[in-house]
Amino acid sequence: MKKPVCIAVTGASGGISSSLLFRLAAGEMLGLDQPIILQLVEVPQAMASLSGLALELEDCALPLLQDIRTFDNPEQGFAAADYAILIGARPRGAGMERNDLLTANAQIFERQGKALNDYANPDVRVLVVGNPANTNALIASRNAPNLNPKQFSALTRLDHNRAKGLVAKHLGVNAEAVENVIIWGNHSSTQYPDLNQAQVKGESVLKQIDETYYHDELIPRIQQRGSEIIKARGHSSAASAAQAIIDHMHDWALGTQNDDIVSMATYSDGSYGIEKGLFYSFPMRCQNGICEIEQGLSLSDFSKERMRLTQNELLEEKASVNHLLPRFKQVVDPLSVRGEGF
Amino acid sequence: MKKPVCIAVTGASGGISSSLLFRLAAGEMLGLDQPIILQLVEVPQAMASLSGLALELEDCALPLLQDIRTFDNPEQGFAAADYAILIGARPRGAGMERNDLLTANAQIFERQGKALNDYANPDVRVLVVGNPANTNALIASRNAPNLNPKQFSALTRLDHNRAKGLVAKHLGVNAEAVENVIIWGNHSSTQYPDLNQAQVKGESVLKQIDETYYHDELIPRIQQRGSEIIKARGHSSAASAAQAIIDHMHDWALGTQNDDIVSMATYSDGSYGIEKGLFYSFPMRCQNGICEIEQGLSLSDFSKERMRLTQNELLEEKASVNHLLPRFKQVVDPLSVRGEGF
Repeated sequence: MKKPVCIAVTGASGGISSSLLFRLAAGEMLGLDQPIILQLVEVPQAMASLSGLALELEDCALPLLQDIRTFDNPEQGFAAADYAILIGARPRGAGMERNDLLTANAQIFERQGKALNDYANPDVRVLVVGNPANTNALIASRNAPNLNPKQFSALTRLDHNRAKGLVAKHLGVNAEAVENVIIWGNHSSTQYPDLNQAQVKGESVLKQIDETYYHDELIPRIQQRGSEIIKARGHSSAASAAQAIIDHMHDWALGTQNDDIVSMATYSDGSYGIEKGLFYSFPMRCQNGICEIEQGLSLSDFSKERMRLTQNELLEEKASVNHLLPRFKQVVDPLSVRGEGF
Repeated sequence: MKKPVCIAVTGASGGISSSLLFRLAAGEMLGLDQPIILQLVEVPQAMASLSGLALELEDCALPLLQDIRTFDNPEQGFAAADYAILIGARPRGAGMERNDLLTANAQIFERQGKALNDYANPDVRVLVVGNPANTNALIASRNAPNLNPKQFSALTRLDHNRAKGLVAKHLGVNAEAVENVIIWGNHSSTQYPDLNQAQVKGESVLKQIDETYYHDELIPRIQQRGSEIIKARGHSSAASAAQAIIDHMHDWALGTQNDDIVSMATYSDGSYGIEKGLFYSFPMRCQNGICEIEQGLSLSDFSKERMRLTQNELLEEKASVNHLLPRFKQVVDPLSVRGEGF
């Protein structure tokens, strides 16, 4: 039996987490041979609801689930965590401006970054889900000077999966047949869903769909899919977000499958001219716990323009919270820590 | 690649199903090599919500999910179904008496039984989850004269898992270590959680816990766990019910694990003196698609009394709906259809 790994989850009593935790505990993220300990973090006023969720987890009698721990603060909640999935974030309230939202979340992720730095396993892998996810990952990372920024990521796998699903439906094939879609940039409506590398059963997707349809219908639909789901479901995506989290962490820990590219918002090293230090969604491949940006893709002028637009939004978000970022970030060479399990 | 199997689910847009469907589609019920088609059935007024759920399923880009079909009636929804999971039921409304509830559900499950009989795959396996689950299974089965009653079952695996979880927590071990718990009878507060066969790592559970605690605290707590969850969560068990459904169907299709006993409400053949024809929860073992009641267990007077009490409740429920049951039920010898895959 493997040693248990410890997975911390914030916003643990919310809708995404209620879908996610049972699947983590059933082995969908790390495999059927990996025992896990769940460390569930909520705000103090949600602890009663979280206790109820913990009872339901007990009621599943799951063989891999070694322990369920609940906390009302990230410092205890992140102690010795091997993985941290940061779902909890401040939603936009009535009358809140965009900057108010960015600032409110900056405070949450500043504290969580510090707590990860001080209490988590030094090898911790962090996924930020709470929006604005890319900028929240930036803030958390910058507040964790002892951790490598490549240990942080933000979720764009949901957008990636949505793109696969919509292309598959349009072409009348199974989603599995669609490979190498790419989401560039921000997990927001400026994201750029790029099908230039995408293939269906080895054939170029763009040779099979009309360019006007791709530019004028498919790209906006992927960008706006979150709103479409809210309208249809009456609440924001929960189960599909949970699936995307499982896929993201599974591939990070166990490797991408079948030579496929996946999308993850990760620390920009300047690849493809994207400003270094931003958390930007790139095409990635993972193997043995190491994720790397896929290099050498040729980009059309259309792609470059779309990639620049979504970068601009991230630069604006960064400018809004810049005064809250620590000035003396310890510089770590990402290559220097590409050791075992990274 | 195996041929896809078709899984029909009723009450498909509700809380249990919202937890369940993504896990079915991810392969948790039938394994990672079994493609599936989902046939989702809802009442007409829930079809908009169901469409939203279907969009989220598309957004997961799940490799095993071949198709998602939605229906507002069981006749189309059950067409060619290999498995049917009947979650939708009429909840008790304000001012409804118990008999009103039984009668309202009897009408639902009468129609569904007929639809299964006429439209499903003749080998269909049916799990009833909607309450009163045991009696609903009886009604559905009696309205499906061409199907063997052993093709129907009702869910007591949630109670079984709860018992495992609570025993494990009390003894400070992992749930996996607790084997051979039994739930007898009705999925209601009269159920009898029986620990006489239960073992922890090969040692008798009842030698490790106090009899007074077992009788006066543990049994009532398992019986009342549903209410405890509603109080803590603000809604009835959803994710843990989904887990129990996965476990029940997994074991039915792929066999029980490690020589463990599981609990399923099944057609009584008179075993242990339980009235033939009731749907009663028994200890079961499954192998190669065949589930059989574990025979030869010796029963204490305490056990016999508890088993009789919960049987009496089922007899009362049956009496309430007896006028709705078809009089000329075709008698099928369960043994005669124990063919491949049953």
